[in-house]
Amino acid sequence: MANIDTEDERAAFLERVRAALSEGPLERAADELRGRHASEIADALESLPPEERTRLWQLVEPRAKGDVLVEAHGEVRRQLIEESATDELIVAVQRLDLDALADLYDELPASVVEAVLRAMDAQRRARFDVVHTYPPDTAGGLMDVDALAVRADVTLRMVLSYLARYRAEHERLPAQTDAVMVTDPDGSYRGRLAVTDLVSLDLETRVHAVMDRRTEPIAADTPAARVTRRFEDEDLVSAAVVDAAGRLIGRITVDDVVDVIREQAENSVMAGAGLDAREDTFAPPLAAAWRRAVWLGINLVSAFVAAWVIGLFEGAIEQVVALAVLMPVVASMGGVAGTQSLALVIRGIALEQVNDDNRLRLLRKELAVGAINGLVWALAVALIATAWFQKPVLSLVFGAALVLNLVWGVAAGTLIPLALARLRIDPVLAGGVVLVALTDAFGFFAFLGMATLLLV
Amino acid sequence: MANIDTEDERAAFLERVRAALSEGPLERAADELRGRHASEIADALESLPPEERTRLWQLVEPRAKGDVLVEAHGEVRRQLIEESATDELIVAVQRLDLDALADLYDELPASVVEAVLRAMDAQRRARFDVVHTYPPDTAGGLMDVDALAVRADVTLRMVLSYLARYRAEHERLPAQTDAVMVTDPDGSYRGRLAVTDLVSLDLETRVHAVMDRRTEPIAADTPAARVTRRFEDEDLVSAAVVDAAGRLIGRITVDDVVDVIREQAENSVMAGAGLDAREDTFAPPLAAAWRRAVWLGINLVSAFVAAWVIGLFEGAIEQVVALAVLMPVVASMGGVAGTQSLALVIRGIALEQVNDDNRLRLLRKELAVGAINGLVWALAVALIATAWFQKPVLSLVFGAALVLNLVWGVAAGTLIPLALARLRIDPVLAGGVVLVALTDAFGFFAFLGMATLLLV
Repeated sequence: MANIDTEDERAAFLERVRAALSEGPLERAADELRGRHASEIADALESLPPEERTRLWQLVEPRAKGDVLVEAHGEVRRQLIEESATDELIVAVQRLDLDALADLYDELPASVVEAVLRAMDAQRRARFDVVHTYPPDTAGGLMDVDALAVRADVTLRMVLSYLARYRAEHERLPAQTDAVMVTDPDGSYRGRLAVTDLVSLDLETRVHAVMDRRTEPIAADTPAARVTRRFEDEDLVSAAVVDAAGRLIGRITVDDVVDVIREQAENSVMAGAGLDAREDTFAPPLAAAWRRAVWLGINLVSAFVAAWVIGLFEGAIEQVVALAVLMPVVASMGGVAGTQSLALVIRGIALEQVNDDNRLRLLRKELAVGAINGLVWALAVALIATAWFQKPVLSLVFGAALVLNLVWGVAAGTLIPLALARLRIDPVLAGGVVLVALTDAFGFFAFLGMATLLLV
Repeated sequence: MANIDTEDERAAFLERVRAALSEGPLERAADELRGRHASEIADALESLPPEERTRLWQLVEPRAKGDVLVEAHGEVRRQLIEESATDELIVAVQRLDLDALADLYDELPASVVEAVLRAMDAQRRARFDVVHTYPPDTAGGLMDVDALAVRADVTLRMVLSYLARYRAEHERLPAQTDAVMVTDPDGSYRGRLAVTDLVSLDLETRVHAVMDRRTEPIAADTPAARVTRRFEDEDLVSAAVVDAAGRLIGRITVDDVVDVIREQAENSVMAGAGLDAREDTFAPPLAAAWRRAVWLGINLVSAFVAAWVIGLFEGAIEQVVALAVLMPVVASMGGVAGTQSLALVIRGIALEQVNDDNRLRLLRKELAVGAINGLVWALAVALIATAWFQKPVLSLVFGAALVLNLVWGVAAGTLIPLALARLRIDPVLAGGVVLVALTDAFGFFAFLGMATLLLV
């Protein structure tokens, strides 16, 4: 991920905003915000503590607030909504794209939603209802309903005059319009006409002669993760969304896809530590502590299971205290080896490289990797332990336990994400805890168990 | 990240390819590949074991091989290049976009590179040299040199006829052309003309009257991570790249940006386990074991430091064996609390929320979070330990050590990524190891040290 770059324009902007907020006059902070992208303003708000955030939010222009809310992350967004008056929110969100409005829908107060829906004309209201039907993590939830569409039998010249009329009426064409969709009279999707064709081909050409029939439309219930794969694989800028009957109902644009990919990336950093990707970096300590407590509690259970395993062998430890010294090495090495398999398999699943066909082969490969590294490092730790404690049998048990726990670790690291993916549980979130619980407990058991048999 | 979706068209495609490969005839596998995107073929190759990969690679059409190489990941790409004849590689790569060729440059055999460069005309060669000047992780390394440019004083109609001529000559416009760049006669960047303006405005309009002057061009030495932020923040489809003198030298398109973001995401999954994002999921076990051994070795050192700390207190453990039972709980809880701070701060750095100005506040907040959770869980573990061992002083020491290690963990989890980012070391890669080394060693030391003072 990125480094801190101190000479950066963005950092300078944030610093100026902060300086203006703390030293005044506030007009200077308001000036700084003018002409900035909503995402930059959202970033500035997110990097401030909650109180200063409130003050900056009051300086954002009322009409810009809607876009800033869309760009802000979960918790910060919630705070900003809570601190805004109903009237202010109505002004802020009523001009948003419908997909953005659908995103905010559940978080806005009911009074705001009602007022905004009441103010919509019938057509916009009907379109909003379509977007709102689909869950936010599907193609339908991601789509805009502003897809331009033409018939296949018209000429490019006719398409141009349609676009000119649309522009005159709406002031601009929809953002990221790289293609105009082509539909049948009943609304069925037929193909797409690239705007670059419109600007470089003979204007008497008919649409059907040049339209792209190859790019498949996306079904509205397609999961967001698959939508992002399509955009990546086919280098799309926009794609048509169709309902179950094949009728064009909207359009997904690459800027929304980029946001989804970025969220997935953030999620994979945060979920591994049991955190929500929406977590506010500068949340009040009590709220933050409460959210993290659950994860610590889960880990506490896992740690006490390991402690219970150790407790089974108190007698052995009493007699050979070196066991207590060396046992964390066995547990930790198994955990690390397992984490490596876990990361590899999680990526393999995400990239759809791993499937029913090859997962047995993958498991065999990982077991081989675990065994090879187990043997190599078992030799190393046995030598170190011999030099330290001069007890050959102890060293033997130590090395053997290490091999076993490494093989156990890679097996668990491979099978856990496969099982979790099958259960539709995010392996990034749950994989690490389950793995460490297993490698700790098994590592202690194997080491102390063998020691009890051979040493005590 | 994504789940395995068994009903998926892509999975079905992979399965058909594999079936054709193993049961023959090979023509059926070759048929399956025809008309598939290069990225889909690359995915299929990556999900096969090395031997079958070789067989499938031989079935890919010679001209398609260049694009497949570009889409393939590091290690798999290396294998495919090694297994291709020189002539075959020349055919495969000579028609690639120059930025793609520059990406492959270092991995191709010298004889192939020389032949391809010799075959270029002078203009293409000069352009290639420009791209190749910049490191691949900068704007210059990401750019295409196929930016279309017009003067500011021409009419939209003249732009259209320029595009029609370009199209007649090159068969197509450059991919992802959402705008034509506007330059001065000396090549200086002035702005951009949206293609949507071209198709919807009066054709007698002059370019300067409607061009977008607001979207800043990207300097060629801008790091890739900042380029992706610009695309995300400003919802760009393409952006102009300029040299130090402000002259237009190329264009970055969103499809390349999507690939960079995806690589960052993969990297953050893999780097946490000490793995390279280029790792082949189905690498031969010996090669895979060798690459992972380094990381296991680093962790072994950390584990032995922890063991050494425990060794300092052998006497105490001999007398109170419950210490050995409980000590992993102290170490593990500190590690988990620290990991949470680490993930939060790494994300904050990546999103540029954390800076010189607010990092002290962030540290104070994390310390407060650690202290709150430390006190809560200390009470819990002390009660459990009392029920288990009936030794109130032991429980007191246990709880106190837990609080100390949680606070220590969040401090380390906050400061380590800030320090690593300053040293330009990837905190995802190195952060976790350093953190666990610190929380294990400190956790054992605090718990066993206090026990020695109060219990023994």
